[in-house]
Amino acid sequence: MLTKKGAATRLRIVDAAATEIRERGVTAVTLEDVGRRSATGKSQLFHYFPDGKEQLLLAVAQREADRVLEDQQPHLGELTSWDAWDRWRDAVVERYRRQGVHCPLGVLITEVGRHTPAAQAVTGLLLERWQREVRAGIGHMRSEGLVGEHVDPDRAAGAVIAAIQGGVAILMSTGSSRHLESALDLCLDYLRTSASARP
Amino acid sequence: MLTKKGAATRLRIVDAAATEIRERGVTAVTLEDVGRRSATGKSQLFHYFPDGKEQLLLAVAQREADRVLEDQQPHLGELTSWDAWDRWRDAVVERYRRQGVHCPLGVLITEVGRHTPAAQAVTGLLLERWQREVRAGIGHMRSEGLVGEHVDPDRAAGAVIAAIQGGVAILMSTGSSRHLESALDLCLDYLRTSASARP
Repeated sequence: MLTKKGAATRLRIVDAAATEIRERGVTAVTLEDVGRRSATGKSQLFHYFPDGKEQLLLAVAQREADRVLEDQQPHLGELTSWDAWDRWRDAVVERYRRQGVHCPLGVLITEVGRHTPAAQAVTGLLLERWQREVRAGIGHMRSEGLVGEHVDPDRAAGAVIAAIQGGVAILMSTGSSRHLESALDLCLDYLRTSASARP
Repeated sequence: MLTKKGAATRLRIVDAAATEIRERGVTAVTLEDVGRRSATGKSQLFHYFPDGKEQLLLAVAQREADRVLEDQQPHLGELTSWDAWDRWRDAVVERYRRQGVHCPLGVLITEVGRHTPAAQAVTGLLLERWQREVRAGIGHMRSEGLVGEHVDPDRAAGAVIAAIQGGVAILMSTGSSRHLESALDLCLDYLRTSASARP
């Protein structure tokens, strides 16, 4: 466990690395650049990231993954009315529109190696946490009778997460948020009408 | 325009390259390997692909893109009953389950450069053709009164395409088709219940 001060220093290093990478690209950035930007000496960098650049990149990836969820708050954490769902939908679209065609998390995952266990842990856990929050929202709406009894919250949440991933992938390739919006809207329409629809 | 014989030779080269790439990876494959496998001389290779390996890789990418749609036929082209939609859904899931975590088209697009105009043309056109076929199916179901009047076939088709892309991306990262299936099922349930649902 890190002390409070230690955790703050580590976060300063990770944030400096994230900024360097966003500005100059992941391959160009060296540990020296990160040390300079975060005003951290070599031995301190080594203390927090003894395995070097790859370990630091993973920490930055984890930070970017955390940000994906943070950017959707407080809406994602309180999907308890259709208004809240609409606000969340808009926040997601806005977040990815702003991000555009370059995904900082994707860049890092590609660099570390998409199929390495460490990279898969970061993306896998992000999708899991994301799906869990959406599932909680669907479960809440269902317990209030606003979503149909026949809707399986976990499967529906998985579908929503897949729809977002696909919409974002197309946005990153085309620059347009059209597919992301259509996909989210279809999922929300489905949930909204499920209470009155035949199973 | 190529003669019939010319087109056959070109296809033989492209198929040989596709097989080489599937077996040995895109970076390892040389024009010599492709020539040997397709029994084509250097000057013939040069005749069909004067710009060299990159031009050949793009042709292979185009072929893999064509295959994505071919693998969904005849179902994709005749989405005129709910049984047909179910058959198509199963064909899509089966295709991507078989493909697993390695996407030949994705590998080629990454190699050519995801953001190059040529690569974007291949993937963009694939998504367009795919969406057009799904839209035709939704339009047909709507004209028969089986899909609600309030459903915009183009937006709904875009949502379906996004849902598939996301489900496949998650399958490629986790090895499981669960998200792809949930996403397709949600879209199909949405369409199926739309005729009786309030807009």
